[in-house]
Amino acid sequence: MTDRLTIALDAMGGDHGPQVVLPAALRVLKKRNDLDLLLVGDREILTRELAALGGGDNPRLHIEHASQCVDMDELPSHALRFKKDSSMRVAINLVKEGRAQACVSAGNTGALMATARYVLKTLRGIDRPAICTALPSMTGHTWMLDLGANIDCTPEQLFQFGLMGSVLCGALDDNSSPRVGLLNIGEEETKGNETVKEAAGLLSTGAMNYVGFIEGTDIYGGEVDVVACDGYIGNIALKSSEGIARMIAFYIKREFSRNILTKLVALIALPVLKSFRKQIDPRRYNGASLLGLRGIVIKSHGGADVLAFANAIDVAALEVEHNVPELISSQLHNILSERQAG
Amino acid sequence: MTDRLTIALDAMGGDHGPQVVLPAALRVLKKRNDLDLLLVGDREILTRELAALGGGDNPRLHIEHASQCVDMDELPSHALRFKKDSSMRVAINLVKEGRAQACVSAGNTGALMATARYVLKTLRGIDRPAICTALPSMTGHTWMLDLGANIDCTPEQLFQFGLMGSVLCGALDDNSSPRVGLLNIGEEETKGNETVKEAAGLLSTGAMNYVGFIEGTDIYGGEVDVVACDGYIGNIALKSSEGIARMIAFYIKREFSRNILTKLVALIALPVLKSFRKQIDPRRYNGASLLGLRGIVIKSHGGADVLAFANAIDVAALEVEHNVPELISSQLHNILSERQAG
Repeated sequence: MTDRLTIALDAMGGDHGPQVVLPAALRVLKKRNDLDLLLVGDREILTRELAALGGGDNPRLHIEHASQCVDMDELPSHALRFKKDSSMRVAINLVKEGRAQACVSAGNTGALMATARYVLKTLRGIDRPAICTALPSMTGHTWMLDLGANIDCTPEQLFQFGLMGSVLCGALDDNSSPRVGLLNIGEEETKGNETVKEAAGLLSTGAMNYVGFIEGTDIYGGEVDVVACDGYIGNIALKSSEGIARMIAFYIKREFSRNILTKLVALIALPVLKSFRKQIDPRRYNGASLLGLRGIVIKSHGGADVLAFANAIDVAALEVEHNVPELISSQLHNILSERQAG
Repeated sequence: MTDRLTIALDAMGGDHGPQVVLPAALRVLKKRNDLDLLLVGDREILTRELAALGGGDNPRLHIEHASQCVDMDELPSHALRFKKDSSMRVAINLVKEGRAQACVSAGNTGALMATARYVLKTLRGIDRPAICTALPSMTGHTWMLDLGANIDCTPEQLFQFGLMGSVLCGALDDNSSPRVGLLNIGEEETKGNETVKEAAGLLSTGAMNYVGFIEGTDIYGGEVDVVACDGYIGNIALKSSEGIARMIAFYIKREFSRNILTKLVALIALPVLKSFRKQIDPRRYNGASLLGLRGIVIKSHGGADVLAFANAIDVAALEVEHNVPELISSQLHNILSERQAG
């Protein structure tokens, strides 16, 4: 048995395409010897770009040709129907065919989700896949899902999200009992709509360490390891957080560049500010998992830079090493069996 | 005609009650001569506390006795039924009776909303009141509503929120054409659920300067002056923002207090950090309006300190000066007339 990993990269996806994906691939290959990468996209472009980067002769980098690209604003249905030879689709096909154990794309999220569902299918017991990522918290990080794939969710789906998040956190963080919270507008049991109240009932049945409702303020507080929510509020929470973080950075920068004196202070404070920034650098958290599929698909931020995309490849490798889809599948199998028995 | 203002304060509400409300009242009275304040609560306690603060002889501070208090976790229905002589209820009654032109409470939000609706009633054309506050943005501030009063909203209600926000922003910021955005999970017209899509249609009919869907990231970017949304996602957005802002503050503090050297740097950077903090100090944004009522009711944060509560009183005074409920009412009247004619 070999422990070598192969990961397919949608080399044309995202805002920057090969300009980011190729250097990121080379960067990751330098770090680890057990990895092969399949670069999916226009062979001519990729060969040329790779040569320019001095990576043309790397024996662990392989090009898989794909003649099309999915546009960032293309409708998922359009991509599914007319882009059967897109770099995104071919990368997912490689996972389906077993030639890669995971794929990473910085392309159009909706198209990636639709194509992955169509090609790979969902696990038995999962209604719809969810987008899950780690977010920084005061004590480390918190896993949150769904972040935008599912606008309207049933209580059962919210239960599945909690379970998948719990399995992912258990595996990747080596946490034997991840605390799972359900995002709501108050901690009291009377708060929220009927869906979350019913979901709370399902989550409380002992399948995981469910700790109850949490509020938006708790996402970053470290009180829970997993935050389950529907994709509508998950997306709103994530984007609002991004927005205020950007605003805070804007004001910090502005205050420090106000005059020559504050610029001097900034120079002195630079190491501290850098060390602070590192703690919550969004690039370190790049790489969201499309959980619930029969295969590993990682979504990188569209605007990811080299460091960020490399991080997404690392996430893919971690999930391969921990066999995340199988873990979710077997947990689900146990729960479904118990339900049938009960 | 006199331009004197009278504002009623729920002196027993919030986490700190009179300890915060009384000093805040004295602080505001010092600043402006055109204001009278009615302190509502237990006369004995208030008289004693006021004397201790040296404010017992202030001719513009009056005590209105109320024998009960609404608890912070009390069910709104319970408060409505059993707390008819609460400081909160009496403060709202004073507005109803015309003895005060506005009231401010740091008490239980749900009870305040329920009591205000019951006592004051909503304006003609408004289905339900909304909670609206200003949030800091990169260019100044943005008004956002609803922040938690209405979990499920109809498209018509979202339209009303946009309109009320537009009127408030127009009056308080002297903005002749506030840009109104509708919070959604994407800017494209195809994104979101049926409710927001229908609401977008209503908002586009020319009653206000509607600019389209915005994402969570845009709340703080300054691209819009008013953000309309249902109370569920509004609350999630607000609380998530609060959460990450707290986390960022936590990491900044931690990095600067890591060792003697970083502490020294912190000392040097202190004026800059303070000036930065001032920009986004939540206390400067304390005082949310319960819009859509036949009267002015301002909700202070439960944990508000003196500066923050004083700010909420200022918001109340501003809305009185601008006659906000009448402005909303007349705008609504015009729209309803046009609809009937059209």
